[in-house]
Amino acid sequence: MSESIDLLLTGGTVVTMDASRRVLVDGAVAVRGREIVAVGSSQEFQSRYQAQETIDCSGCAIIPGLINGHAHVPMSLLRGMVADQQLDVWLFGYMFPVESQFVDAEFCYTGTLLSCAEMIRGGTTTFVDMYYFEEQVARAAAESGMRAICGQTVMRLPTPDAASFDEGLERARRFILEWHGHERVVPTIAPHAPYTCTDRIYREASAICAEYGVPLVTHLSETAREVEESIAQREVTPIRYAKRVGAFDVPCIAAHCVHATEDDLRLLREAGAGAVPCPTSNLKLASGVAPYRRMIEAGLKVGLGTDGPASNDDQDMFTEIQLAALLPKGISGDPTAVPAREAFALATISGARAIHMDHLVGSLEPGKRADITVVGLGRLHSAPRYTYSSDAVYSHLAYSARAADVRDVLVDGKLLLRDGNLLTLDEHDILARSQQIAAGINTFLASRERNLMAKILALGGVQQDEIFEIQVKAKLDQRAETVLAELFSNPAVQITKSSERTQYDTYFLFADGERVRIREDHRSDPGARPEPKYTITLISEGRRGEYPHAILLSRARYTAPADHTVRFYREYFQPDRMVEREKSRRRWRIIYKEHDFAVNVDTLAGADPGPYLEIKSRTWSRRDANTRAGLIGELLALAGVTDEALVKQEYVDIG
Amino acid sequence: MSESIDLLLTGGTVVTMDASRRVLVDGAVAVRGREIVAVGSSQEFQSRYQAQETIDCSGCAIIPGLINGHAHVPMSLLRGMVADQQLDVWLFGYMFPVESQFVDAEFCYTGTLLSCAEMIRGGTTTFVDMYYFEEQVARAAAESGMRAICGQTVMRLPTPDAASFDEGLERARRFILEWHGHERVVPTIAPHAPYTCTDRIYREASAICAEYGVPLVTHLSETAREVEESIAQREVTPIRYAKRVGAFDVPCIAAHCVHATEDDLRLLREAGAGAVPCPTSNLKLASGVAPYRRMIEAGLKVGLGTDGPASNDDQDMFTEIQLAALLPKGISGDPTAVPAREAFALATISGARAIHMDHLVGSLEPGKRADITVVGLGRLHSAPRYTYSSDAVYSHLAYSARAADVRDVLVDGKLLLRDGNLLTLDEHDILARSQQIAAGINTFLASRERNLMAKILALGGVQQDEIFEIQVKAKLDQRAETVLAELFSNPAVQITKSSERTQYDTYFLFADGERVRIREDHRSDPGARPEPKYTITLISEGRRGEYPHAILLSRARYTAPADHTVRFYREYFQPDRMVEREKSRRRWRIIYKEHDFAVNVDTLAGADPGPYLEIKSRTWSRRDANTRAGLIGELLALAGVTDEALVKQEYVDIG
Repeated sequence: MSESIDLLLTGGTVVTMDASRRVLVDGAVAVRGREIVAVGSSQEFQSRYQAQETIDCSGCAIIPGLINGHAHVPMSLLRGMVADQQLDVWLFGYMFPVESQFVDAEFCYTGTLLSCAEMIRGGTTTFVDMYYFEEQVARAAAESGMRAICGQTVMRLPTPDAASFDEGLERARRFILEWHGHERVVPTIAPHAPYTCTDRIYREASAICAEYGVPLVTHLSETAREVEESIAQREVTPIRYAKRVGAFDVPCIAAHCVHATEDDLRLLREAGAGAVPCPTSNLKLASGVAPYRRMIEAGLKVGLGTDGPASNDDQDMFTEIQLAALLPKGISGDPTAVPAREAFALATISGARAIHMDHLVGSLEPGKRADITVVGLGRLHSAPRYTYSSDAVYSHLAYSARAADVRDVLVDGKLLLRDGNLLTLDEHDILARSQQIAAGINTFLASRERNLMAKILALGGVQQDEIFEIQVKAKLDQRAETVLAELFSNPAVQITKSSERTQYDTYFLFADGERVRIREDHRSDPGARPEPKYTITLISEGRRGEYPHAILLSRARYTAPADHTVRFYREYFQPDRMVEREKSRRRWRIIYKEHDFAVNVDTLAGADPGPYLEIKSRTWSRRDANTRAGLIGELLALAGVTDEALVKQEYVDIG
Repeated sequence: MSESIDLLLTGGTVVTMDASRRVLVDGAVAVRGREIVAVGSSQEFQSRYQAQETIDCSGCAIIPGLINGHAHVPMSLLRGMVADQQLDVWLFGYMFPVESQFVDAEFCYTGTLLSCAEMIRGGTTTFVDMYYFEEQVARAAAESGMRAICGQTVMRLPTPDAASFDEGLERARRFILEWHGHERVVPTIAPHAPYTCTDRIYREASAICAEYGVPLVTHLSETAREVEESIAQREVTPIRYAKRVGAFDVPCIAAHCVHATEDDLRLLREAGAGAVPCPTSNLKLASGVAPYRRMIEAGLKVGLGTDGPASNDDQDMFTEIQLAALLPKGISGDPTAVPAREAFALATISGARAIHMDHLVGSLEPGKRADITVVGLGRLHSAPRYTYSSDAVYSHLAYSARAADVRDVLVDGKLLLRDGNLLTLDEHDILARSQQIAAGINTFLASRERNLMAKILALGGVQQDEIFEIQVKAKLDQRAETVLAELFSNPAVQITKSSERTQYDTYFLFADGERVRIREDHRSDPGARPEPKYTITLISEGRRGEYPHAILLSRARYTAPADHTVRFYREYFQPDRMVEREKSRRRWRIIYKEHDFAVNVDTLAGADPGPYLEIKSRTWSRRDANTRAGLIGELLALAGVTDEALVKQEYVDIG
């Protein structure tokens, strides 16, 4: 009498990833309901079981469904949006402005559907997420049929779905309450990282995880800088800090751990915490290469993740397996560093341990859930097949197999992909909806890219000003003190303020004539503010007018504090040319005939130092500008400056 | 009047890779005969040209056919055969034995067909090869329709196709004569590497290249060790050596250059030599990461290669592009190190320069050959598409695109792949023939893996011996000198030789009882050979017999000089357990009743030092063994050793 089952996979090379790493050539897997009933020989099973459905897997490997241990799945919609930038330009110039404007419930739902479709096609059956509007991620994951741990992000900064972290914690709690008990989706909370969280966020997140018996998801030690700053600020590494604030009191899934120290590895092991490096993302964001071999040797629960598609750019676990096998070899100089079998384990049984799900998934064993991937072997890029050693199949899986080779995928015994066709998701519809959202972002970025003003505004937190500047410049040579004495001795001229400063100006020049100036202003007079002041100014396309005596009218369209480094702005604005100028400035604010003016005496560093006299005034009114231009002509006369001394060029053009 | 052409590709994003890196959204490429006639807008071209055939490329990128700048294409047949081994185990334990036994004309022809099929499917249109039986590589490449530079390997060691390098040079010359002038296949010579060649090989190869106007293909500075040894032996780096022996007197294609120094980079640039790192292979063989950014900055002609599929394991240029973009970021900590566009250039226009073919291929420009790849964008793993910046398409191509996304491929205006179908090659037949060859190798390796003897023999250059050893062992404690005096004072015992030595033995123990011993033998008596002697011995499965007085018969099945390190043998044999023993040995060769015996007095390092007396003899005859066993009994009596002192254990089991 043969036993009745729902599904029989036969004729494939079964890669069990069980404790003895059994590989069965011409093997079979029997599935009943959501569970694996048995793993054995094809021939034997064909007589032992009476299956509702039999899938012939000849020429294929039958492997445990792959586990993506760290992702931000809705970010698939930002894939390819921007790349190859420094982290701050990437984050402050693109990710934050776009996320704050576009990330909403619909974005997260659609982005997750796109990611699930991609992951299923690539043989991934389980993923761990951390993003916003996590209930939408959960909803899409549930619809797709995948298994997921969904972590609602909490941080101390405002996020697209929470104005404060109190709100974020509350949101996470509601989300967990709503989804708790779902058969495939585990709702949880994800304190973003030590550098974006407070002690309280971690402690409360840990308490919530303990209360609901769910794992805590977080980022730890992704970059060297993060570790350095943590040590500088808290005297401990991010991993030791995480332990201190309770993150390891519950099962923890720690993404990245690229810069984990030996002590950190010990802490992670003792805590039974999962470490989940993301090979591609860690390279692309220049974070480095995680110590894979040491992690494995130290007995850690190690997984692999894709990270968000904005920094990868795909969600292809075969690529991550390949990199986990290749990178440690190339970095260490030891070609045996992480063998194919161990790299493959990181995305299966070891990855299951890292996300605290190895009781359910990660290997093909009786009693475990039927999360199974069938992947074609012996294709053009993976032929021929060697079978003399059971290790050969791992070599094929780690080095030759591609996401596109995946043929069938099951989760909980249910087929999500069959012969390359998605059964739970409408690929065409998802692609169309994704492109529609991307089109809006594309328009936003396109208009911004064409417009320096918009690029400055996109950085956020600033107001657009529009003012006229009237100015005149004269080269004084040796006569500076005489000129000043003439001017200031006149009773109509009243000095209201004076100062001394050194200014370092960086000009970004653009082909269309626009200029951006970054100024670092150091007060050098005693008692003045010691810290320099940074401003960014967008200077209009050329002069807007000229008065007698070379008095110029220009329009400074925008000035704001410059919060970022010159390097940041340079990479963000990508100017055609860059010029640096240094000058010492003596400045007086004066009142003349009820109008205020600035009088500068500037000495430039370099070939043509001056000194130069500048008289300037600003106004919101074009008519007022005309009045002030006349008054500047009078002041020039009072100072005894003749027209021959006048200079029309700006400092950026001198020397 | 519209102009008549053969083929019009329309509606795609044309990535020209011309000098200004023009990207045309909704662009078109017009092809007549084997050349590109024009590149422009779809709308305009549809009215301007009357095409025999129009291919709609909407939703796709139209890119220059990819250039694989370094490969050993017949080695696709060895893909997945062995991985994750140290270079010497990989090379001496697997590659050399298999190549010497299996690589012939048929192997090279079939392997090349398999590789060409894979490469065409992956969007590669040109490859540079270096292998044996290169006329077969040329033949298969010609049949496939691909463009290729085929380099006949020459080295000072015997190869599968040449017993000496003179023969190799002659073979290369014949090959070039035969194929010279082919429209797509450039035949040339490939001196393997400085460490496997002589000055004369390089000089003659260079002369042949000059004579026929073909590029010289070679490996340079692949590993740090190669550079160190070159400096130790020749006082120059491999790259400077290559220049010295004429390799740069002709256009040179230098594979790898992973460990090129700044001086080397200057030499390569001055020579206009192409540098072709192989990102995956360099990682997998633990060679390291080439200085991609420095190479680009230094103005070198830089390409990318897959290297042989035995060390990759595929021939997927999209993977290499991705790694060339990712690795420099992760290694340097600078996420702008090699942007997507520059990485993509390495496989197109820059790669074309590196192989000295940029007058023909590498960009989509009028007058160049119509070597074109059409690759789908906006698939699940590459959606959505951003177009606000023309750089976005490079990001898609470098980070998201996969070989499996390639839809159409043309070389010289001829379609080789159309809608994913190979037009020039029979995929099914190639896979079957490839698997047939692999099956033979598989059988060879399978029988070898089951048999220690076969594994030793597979290392080559040795003879199988089979001898019986008769031996007895006794623990002497403090009586050693007394015993020896008794024995040697007997007039029937004649000493013929004596020596003193220290022996370091490493035993590999296997579950089935077999043992392999690696012995390092140092003579310590004055005037003896100073260099140690290394031997490897396979010891039979257990004792084969026992005589009175604990005299044992064993069969030493095999002894040979050990040319490799203990580490090599350990990784090659993969024993279940390893034991190390050190002993001081005084040895006498004696004649007793016309039979020769060895008498050893051994003192072990460790807990149970002895000393031990051993009396041994060897013979080819089982009957003679009986005689000698009797004589050993007599010698024991002469020495006054009683049965209580006898020890049956071998040294590996003592202490």
